[in-house]
Amino acid sequence: MKKYAKQSRLLVAVDCIIFGFDGFKLKVLLVKRSFEPEKDKWSLMGGFVGPQESPENAASRVLTQLTGLKDVYMEQMRVFGNPDRDPIERTISITYFALIDIHKYEKQIDEQQYHAEWFSLKEIPSLIFDHKQMIEHGKLNLRYKASLHPILFELLPDKFTLTQVIDLFEQVFDVLLDKRNFNRKLSSTKLLVKQKDKDKMHSKKGAYYYKLNKKIYKDKFGAFLNFISNPKIG
Amino acid sequence: MKKYAKQSRLLVAVDCIIFGFDGFKLKVLLVKRSFEPEKDKWSLMGGFVGPQESPENAASRVLTQLTGLKDVYMEQMRVFGNPDRDPIERTISITYFALIDIHKYEKQIDEQQYHAEWFSLKEIPSLIFDHKQMIEHGKLNLRYKASLHPILFELLPDKFTLTQVIDLFEQVFDVLLDKRNFNRKLSSTKLLVKQKDKDKMHSKKGAYYYKLNKKIYKDKFGAFLNFISNPKIG
Repeated sequence: MKKYAKQSRLLVAVDCIIFGFDGFKLKVLLVKRSFEPEKDKWSLMGGFVGPQESPENAASRVLTQLTGLKDVYMEQMRVFGNPDRDPIERTISITYFALIDIHKYEKQIDEQQYHAEWFSLKEIPSLIFDHKQMIEHGKLNLRYKASLHPILFELLPDKFTLTQVIDLFEQVFDVLLDKRNFNRKLSSTKLLVKQKDKDKMHSKKGAYYYKLNKKIYKDKFGAFLNFISNPKIG
Repeated sequence: MKKYAKQSRLLVAVDCIIFGFDGFKLKVLLVKRSFEPEKDKWSLMGGFVGPQESPENAASRVLTQLTGLKDVYMEQMRVFGNPDRDPIERTISITYFALIDIHKYEKQIDEQQYHAEWFSLKEIPSLIFDHKQMIEHGKLNLRYKASLHPILFELLPDKFTLTQVIDLFEQVFDVLLDKRNFNRKLSSTKLLVKQKDKDKMHSKKGAYYYKLNKKIYKDKFGAFLNFISNPKIG
């Protein structure tokens, strides 16, 4: 076991990137860091991995401690391992990624002692270390997932307007969409089922609500890979 | 900095999952472990991350040391962090993933002092620790990537037969394909350009060679997400 004895041991941390959509804006959850260095600066929800703890368990523990959020399904994203990313001591950070419905968790978050807050992706404050880069990577991951799975529609409320769909896609993919063209394409997919009622809160004329036809959506997603029926891709 | 002082430091390793296709079989590269515990057992190419080394650099260094492979683009996959995955001392392992053309690197690998060998995915020997699980995850990752990007066709030689395409897809997605149906679908995509010459090595009648129409392939891949032109997804 000599080989082991000679190695360096490193600090290992987790950082959680929690994205949410509130019906208007794509947001990310941040918290004020509670210890030095960079105390009181905005940061992702992070902490060290304990000796008997898996990184997954560490991520859940940290998220609950700092925000009150429980039972959030987080998936591992990537490791940030630049040797000088933490000025005090080398720390490898494993990032975790989740998408949540902001309104569903509003109350849980508000009751916490730490100051956790949602920030629009366009208005992220200055962050500690490489956390901005982590969020950037989280956004790419979101696009990647959104290209394979119906996750963006799942971020929307049960019924939603076309404006909300466009807003969400524009923010996730960082593009300005031609609304007419987008609506035409969307309508041709038959993914959305027009409802009878309208949202009258945000315009005089009102905007029809839509619901997702989940079956068609799922089938559509398989279509580009229709060589293989129902590939297991994770 | 008290918070830092109290934490545990952990061993951090990298393990490299190198997939290749030799025209017939999807394979993974393994090496005989050179130190205890489990010396001389088959293993992925792995090693510890040095104090001043990024995990990416460690992965490249380890791969070159053990197999001679240089300039292989590897992407980070996931962390295996179960507290008892290594029986000697807790070690977090960051896995890296690459797809290579086996024939292109044949010579590099043969010249090395360590015994590296390609194994068909169907015939993987007993492996150390959780390396089998790592390969399983690598396979899921391969499917995931293959659903978004033209990577499977890139594993094929410049010209290839339909049998090779089917073999590759069957092995990656672990399915038995209806060959006629698959060929019909494939032909309708216009992805492949039939060549004038035939492979006569593997059947009397011979099988026509095909080449990939990369432009159509790329366009097709965007099609399922045609709301957004050229989304940047990583």
